[in-house]
Amino acid sequence: MLKIGKYEFNSRLLLGTGKYPNFDIQKEAVAVSESEILTFAVRRMNIFEASQPNFLEKLDLSKYTLLPNTAGAKTAEEAVRIAKLAKASGLCDMIKVEVIGCQKTLLPDPVETLKASEELLKEGFIVLPYTSDDVLLAKRLEDLGCHAIMPGASPIGSGQGIINPLNLRFIIEQSSVPVIVDAGIGTPSDAAIAMELGADGVLLNTAVSGANDPVKMAKAMKLAIEAGRLGYEAGRIPKKQYATASSPMEGMSIS
Amino acid sequence: MLKIGKYEFNSRLLLGTGKYPNFDIQKEAVAVSESEILTFAVRRMNIFEASQPNFLEKLDLSKYTLLPNTAGAKTAEEAVRIAKLAKASGLCDMIKVEVIGCQKTLLPDPVETLKASEELLKEGFIVLPYTSDDVLLAKRLEDLGCHAIMPGASPIGSGQGIINPLNLRFIIEQSSVPVIVDAGIGTPSDAAIAMELGADGVLLNTAVSGANDPVKMAKAMKLAIEAGRLGYEAGRIPKKQYATASSPMEGMSIS
Amino acid sequence: MLKIGKYEFNSRLLLGTGKYPNFDIQKEAVAVSESEILTFAVRRMNIFEASQPNFLEKLDLSKYTLLPNTAGAKTAEEAVRIAKLAKASGLCDMIKVEVIGCQKTLLPDPVETLKASEELLKEGFIVLPYTSDDVLLAKRLEDLGCHAIMPGASPIGSGQGIINPLNLRFIIEQSSVPVIVDAGIGTPSDAAIAMELGADGVLLNTAVSGANDPVKMAKAMKLAIEAGRLGYEAGRIPKKQYATASSPMEGMSIS
Amino acid sequence: MLKIGKYEFNSRLLLGTGKYPNFDIQKEAVAVSESEILTFAVRRMNIFEASQPNFLEKLDLSKYTLLPNTAGAKTAEEAVRIAKLAKASGLCDMIKVEVIGCQKTLLPDPVETLKASEELLKEGFIVLPYTSDDVLLAKRLEDLGCHAIMPGASPIGSGQGIINPLNLRFIIEQSSVPVIVDAGIGTPSDAAIAMELGADGVLLNTAVSGANDPVKMAKAMKLAIEAGRLGYEAGRIPKKQYATASSPMEGMSIS
Repeated sequence: MLKIGKYEFNSRLLLGTGKYPNFDIQKEAVAVSESEILTFAVRRMNIFEASQPNFLEKLDLSKYTLLPNTAGAKTAEEAVRIAKLAKASGLCDMIKVEVIGCQKTLLPDPVETLKASEELLKEGFIVLPYTSDDVLLAKRLEDLGCHAIMPGASPIGSGQGIINPLNLRFIIEQSSVPVIVDAGIGTPSDAAIAMELGADGVLLNTAVSGANDPVKMAKAMKLAIEAGRLGYEAGRIPKKQYATASSPMEGMSIS
Repeated sequence: MLKIGKYEFNSRLLLGTGKYPNFDIQKEAVAVSESEILTFAVRRMNIFEASQPNFLEKLDLSKYTLLPNTAGAKTAEEAVRIAKLAKASGLCDMIKVEVIGCQKTLLPDPVETLKASEELLKEGFIVLPYTSDDVLLAKRLEDLGCHAIMPGASPIGSGQGIINPLNLRFIIEQSSVPVIVDAGIGTPSDAAIAMELGADGVLLNTAVSGANDPVKMAKAMKLAIEAGRLGYEAGRIPKKQYATASSPMEGMSIS
Repeated sequence: MLKIGKYEFNSRLLLGTGKYPNFDIQKEAVAVSESEILTFAVRRMNIFEASQPNFLEKLDLSKYTLLPNTAGAKTAEEAVRIAKLAKASGLCDMIKVEVIGCQKTLLPDPVETLKASEELLKEGFIVLPYTSDDVLLAKRLEDLGCHAIMPGASPIGSGQGIINPLNLRFIIEQSSVPVIVDAGIGTPSDAAIAMELGADGVLLNTAVSGANDPVKMAKAMKLAIEAGRLGYEAGRIPKKQYATASSPMEGMSIS
Repeated sequence: MLKIGKYEFNSRLLLGTGKYPNFDIQKEAVAVSESEILTFAVRRMNIFEASQPNFLEKLDLSKYTLLPNTAGAKTAEEAVRIAKLAKASGLCDMIKVEVIGCQKTLLPDPVETLKASEELLKEGFIVLPYTSDDVLLAKRLEDLGCHAIMPGASPIGSGQGIINPLNLRFIIEQSSVPVIVDAGIGTPSDAAIAMELGADGVLLNTAVSGANDPVKMAKAMKLAIEAGRLGYEAGRIPKKQYATASSPMEGMSIS
């Protein structure tokens, strides 16, 4: 059970809604993923343009918790403004804080992320900041009162998977709120590794929406996250330098 | 569907039967793994000692295909003798050829493995050789007529996972018979990686039997192998050096 | 030529002075390393206790630039106090800002590091902050006016080498001040990798002082850093998935 | 000191002579590399075509030991023929056995390599087989009497570096003849890693000849191999999960 603020979820997969080939594929991918939390950029809400086709309209929104993000914000001020816009829609009170400091790497700005998170917590939001895997920055975000920490595995959309498992492990060990690995996941095994490290969830988008077959990949991600979580709970064998026979051979002879 | 010789299987997980805490846990782990192929060392069969408790007796053998292995053999001659012993039991006609050349690393001897495989093919066995990830050795084993190729990921029981994904990929690309990654798997993500590379199956034992909770790990492995296979079929996104926004941002403004 | 503030150095190896088996070995290791910048914890200066054996007394300090660090500081305030103590000694005006946020990981606190750096810059120090590999944090430190950026490769003294080469590359690409990889280096190849990424220098201590033979390792590090720098300048071949013959074979025949 | 058969060398870098931009750069790269062993494909010797410009003619061959290779051979028979051709020239009695089993990966064929090595040993050659990193295959080559073992790091010319350090370590541990890591080296750090694993030497070609500045890269490789060797001899610090302070902090206070 994944608990974020007042919400509880059975699924540990948070799925993004961007860049699917079309809305039917998006809908089907969302369904087979069994994700209960859908993220999207507030800037895509088209709240004021009801005539446009809306990327959320195919989805039965009673079944999902929406997690809007502040993508596009370069400052805390912009992030706060975007978050308030989302909340004003009445659709959600959770916010993924995303304040990007560099357009090439899409990596988050630590100072503005702290500032935006602090402000939004004061405003009563359930705050999930997207952050780097800086361990002490994650600690500060938790100390502010953030409801979950979302460290990146590698740059957004890069599909490079988890570059620094050590930092993620440190963040997971120190955190008493959920840690959701966000950004950079490319494959089911990447998602499984995140969960095996002890993460409480994984957020991904491009890995599914950009796959040759998004629906099949959505299913794969669902299974991988369950597998990784079970593997974490089951307790892996230690790594050994040398080999160990899997069959007990002592005292046996071929005769 | 995994086809090996005349056999067909829905599951792509081949599970070893050695070193479980007890036979009840073994039985339950086997059940939740949904594995259809169980491997074991012929030397553990105790064929001539009916009074001893038998590690297979808890299992409904009508539900599984048995894949005995020649663990303990150091030469082709020994491997052939062990294989014939297994076949004589009437339980199986598949054999995993395992000729170990070094007790510290438990890595296979290429020359004896080739020799044993050739001999056993002549004798009408369905032959699955355990081999290193040497690409041309795998080719030679296939050219002999082996029914599947079983390259190791890392030393048996080491839990180091897949050290050389490139060689596995080369073996998979060149093979027209199933490639089953064998040995060294430690975690669900390791198994998923094997499948994402395009492997037809994964054989593991210690990763499950040696886990803190073998039953839970068996379930995790089952899911991971399905996830990895689906991920392979779904076609992953390419890795990129830099980031790519997951939301289409062009032409949008916050207003 | 490595330029930090008003200083210029031929060597790109910054060597720590802590934890050598004895001061003679320290002196010899420093000599063969050909390092021109020696770092030490101000807390070890024993400025007020002249009767104690001093770890710097064996060294000809006219040959080296001293880079004191604020190890032991947990807040910006403490770091500033330590830095001023060092400057008051008249030995140095460079300071490595080190504000540790966690005693288990010895990873730096980003907020206190920013604060201390800002304060010390105002005080006229040449400031080299030890930081995580958070890319945007490094940018902010540079924007403050820091004279070099010192991202960690992995936790201090862990010998894990460079865990996240991508972040280091991003930091190097974005920086117009020197980037000196600090912390976590275990082997000569680790140091070479840092330099091949384009780092301007490497700071290390335990890798040399804790080696079985510190003097030999000091020599190895010196050579590795030169090798890595030359390799960076020489421009490596691209990585290829498949092979490429090193001999031109076209149109040749054995006859 | 590197000893191969009756020969002794100060340098542990074996340098290939193929594919330099021109012979002047080749000559200079060879000089700064301080390599004492030069490899080349016999098929390029142009023995019967004296009028052609010869790639060796710029080099003072009294200073180098030539190590011809059998590149181009697909069978033991071809390799033996090529080796004899080289020996007939009077230039050399060492031979690098290279029997390629696949043109895409340029990986060696184990069976033909064993056969060719055995035959050439009988003929009195000093035999250095290029082989995969299959540990037991390396053992068999040594048992035949080969004078050095040359396992590949990754495919020829791929620049992927050392994919499987574990197998290389196993080969090095088991071997009483020199182990020279051959093929796949891309960077100085790759070469250093090979040496840190305990290799006796490194053979490379494309990493130098294909670099933007081959002469500078040749120098870098020379230094990296020395650094790696010294690092191996010096004994690295153990890797630790967590951090260790490099300054002794116990009992100190800022006052």
